[in-house]
Amino acid sequence: MNRHYAPASVQQAHDWVDQWPVASGSVELALHQAAGYLLTQSIKAATDIPLQAQCARDGYAVIAADTLGAGDYNPLVLRLTAADKTLGRGQAIQVSAGDPLPEGADAILSLSQAEPRHVMLDVSCSLAAGEGVLGQGEECQQSDILLAAGRRLRPQDLARLAFAGVKSVKVRRKPRVVLILAGHFIHDADGTMLSPLIARDGGELIGIQSATSRQTLDRQLTELDADVILVAGGSGYGHNDFAVQALHDCGEIGLDGVTIHPGGGVVMGRVTDKPVLLLPGSPLSCLCAYDLIAARLLRRMAAKSDPLPYCMQTFTLSRKLVSRIGQLELARMRIDGQFAEPLAVADDRLLSSSVRADGFTLLAENSEGHAEGSEVEVYLYDEYNQS
Amino acid sequence: MNRHYAPASVQQAHDWVDQWPVASGSVELALHQAAGYLLTQSIKAATDIPLQAQCARDGYAVIAADTLGAGDYNPLVLRLTAADKTLGRGQAIQVSAGDPLPEGADAILSLSQAEPRHVMLDVSCSLAAGEGVLGQGEECQQSDILLAAGRRLRPQDLARLAFAGVKSVKVRRKPRVVLILAGHFIHDADGTMLSPLIARDGGELIGIQSATSRQTLDRQLTELDADVILVAGGSGYGHNDFAVQALHDCGEIGLDGVTIHPGGGVVMGRVTDKPVLLLPGSPLSCLCAYDLIAARLLRRMAAKSDPLPYCMQTFTLSRKLVSRIGQLELARMRIDGQFAEPLAVADDRLLSSSVRADGFTLLAENSEGHAEGSEVEVYLYDEYNQS
Repeated sequence: MNRHYAPASVQQAHDWVDQWPVASGSVELALHQAAGYLLTQSIKAATDIPLQAQCARDGYAVIAADTLGAGDYNPLVLRLTAADKTLGRGQAIQVSAGDPLPEGADAILSLSQAEPRHVMLDVSCSLAAGEGVLGQGEECQQSDILLAAGRRLRPQDLARLAFAGVKSVKVRRKPRVVLILAGHFIHDADGTMLSPLIARDGGELIGIQSATSRQTLDRQLTELDADVILVAGGSGYGHNDFAVQALHDCGEIGLDGVTIHPGGGVVMGRVTDKPVLLLPGSPLSCLCAYDLIAARLLRRMAAKSDPLPYCMQTFTLSRKLVSRIGQLELARMRIDGQFAEPLAVADDRLLSSSVRADGFTLLAENSEGHAEGSEVEVYLYDEYNQS
Repeated sequence: MNRHYAPASVQQAHDWVDQWPVASGSVELALHQAAGYLLTQSIKAATDIPLQAQCARDGYAVIAADTLGAGDYNPLVLRLTAADKTLGRGQAIQVSAGDPLPEGADAILSLSQAEPRHVMLDVSCSLAAGEGVLGQGEECQQSDILLAAGRRLRPQDLARLAFAGVKSVKVRRKPRVVLILAGHFIHDADGTMLSPLIARDGGELIGIQSATSRQTLDRQLTELDADVILVAGGSGYGHNDFAVQALHDCGEIGLDGVTIHPGGGVVMGRVTDKPVLLLPGSPLSCLCAYDLIAARLLRRMAAKSDPLPYCMQTFTLSRKLVSRIGQLELARMRIDGQFAEPLAVADDRLLSSSVRADGFTLLAENSEGHAEGSEVEVYLYDEYNQS
């Protein structure tokens, strides 16, 4: 292949990423494992919930009409009776939340609305029928949809399903990612960094492999079963860089380089129907290319709505921030109260800049920078965007 | 024990929670497992990083003085030479990021600053010595502190450590939580819901047990080894509620009830030096008491800085929101664009209200509510607060 340095625009890179579909296929999970997954089928209630009327709070089951007119300055008196009796006029039964509603009762006084005195109960509040009661089918009625397909499952959703007797759910499986470390690494900095990032963005890392030769990488690109293949390292123009040639020969290169900095050496292509991203091996470039391109791809395939993995906040620039025209710059910033201070431009080579930084500002391709005192949007390294 | 319904104020409940220390003890983890943990000891660099000067980008190693005066309108020409040669005046060597800096070179032209033409190189940019070079010890020098004790480990921090040859780190262990389901559950709604919530708030759930009798719960409270014991259910005033009596007899009750709604039945106490929280069994009350009280305790013990587990955003109330004086109300809200709409008050009994809601507003004990059109702060169920 005849390779010429001509990076694509950020828009072209985004268009390339956004062509890929959400990862298909579903998997059945026990409820306690399913938080955060997307439901792939709607779930209906098999019965009314609750099956019979219940007490919704601790307190005293009463006949609402017996409390008519009661108030702090006009307490009425009821007589306490045993829990297994049918409630008659003028009577009250002590109950717990979740108990079946005693026969004859139609409301529950809370503990702060009544005061027991031996076998009598001073009532200081007037109730309407149904107050403090959970009626049959009030949580849901038989055949109601408990949760609709496409729902991202929250802990309380799981409780709702458990409540309805559901044991497991079919959910969209996460995009399966294989990470290949290409080239000759002394220490696996990129693999160590990318593993938690892949999990953060909704991917399931199903394997980390190394490829120290062109032959190995060819075989991996052709044979590995995954939804996404990420290759870190070996994507440059040097004598040991074989990843681009391998991708070219085994599949197809889409975009060779993007006008982002750091991380502009990212290469995007495919093998059959699988997207393949070649990330620069230098850890800072790898991090930036991952956050701007690979994270967008994984988040898309995992059906997350926000393409950027970090939460954003606005700060005031404490000194001028200069940017080169022609590339999207990821300028690492330190935060101090309401102020953001750019790190020195020379730090562009240093992974330590992303360790010292609290986040980064994105400077568009056509931006020359911002003056001291301007408002800037900073993406915070410690606050991940879940949705 | 003589139990009387007299709930503590929210301030008293917070004071009780805030007396507990961060969970002590550390654990050694491999780097790829350590993201999000707090480092318990500072880590120093064993050597300079890099050990020798490196190329910081793909391009061409040159002698900076040879590029003096080069520009787009005044390209200079250098001669390409083999990578293993010492660089002489007027020469350039093609390099990859991460290569050792060729002998004699002191700067790297990027691929966009030079254009190869057979064995010649057209140079369109003038460099200063050191540009594109990562000098010996520039990431860090021997004995520099790579990361300080107390740091919450980010993915890039792990890369920095891997880069320095570190294989594992000592980190603060998570608070270990045992969850006991007390009483007679048909379906384990609370356990299913609480498991992911405990993980979210930085706890490690080391066991879920059930207690269907007072004797079992006594034994569990006395014998279980954990940093926190959460008990769901059995905390009310009913005939089957034995959890409060068990906690009273095995340890000590601190606060019996808090003026929050829903979830006011939460009970806080200790057995020896362990905090024990009794959460109401009704799933909606359980969720609210967990989010307002138990999450605060876990997040504190896990050294998270924000006591509330959800991110907050401001919205405009689409209709009046009424609140009772005397309790902190957790009012579930639906979000529609910039508007927040309160769910019906009657939904206070229904778990489904927290399923239909997008988040909640907190109405202080002395608040009577807010008028239509006011700004309200909504905590979003789908956006967790990581720090």
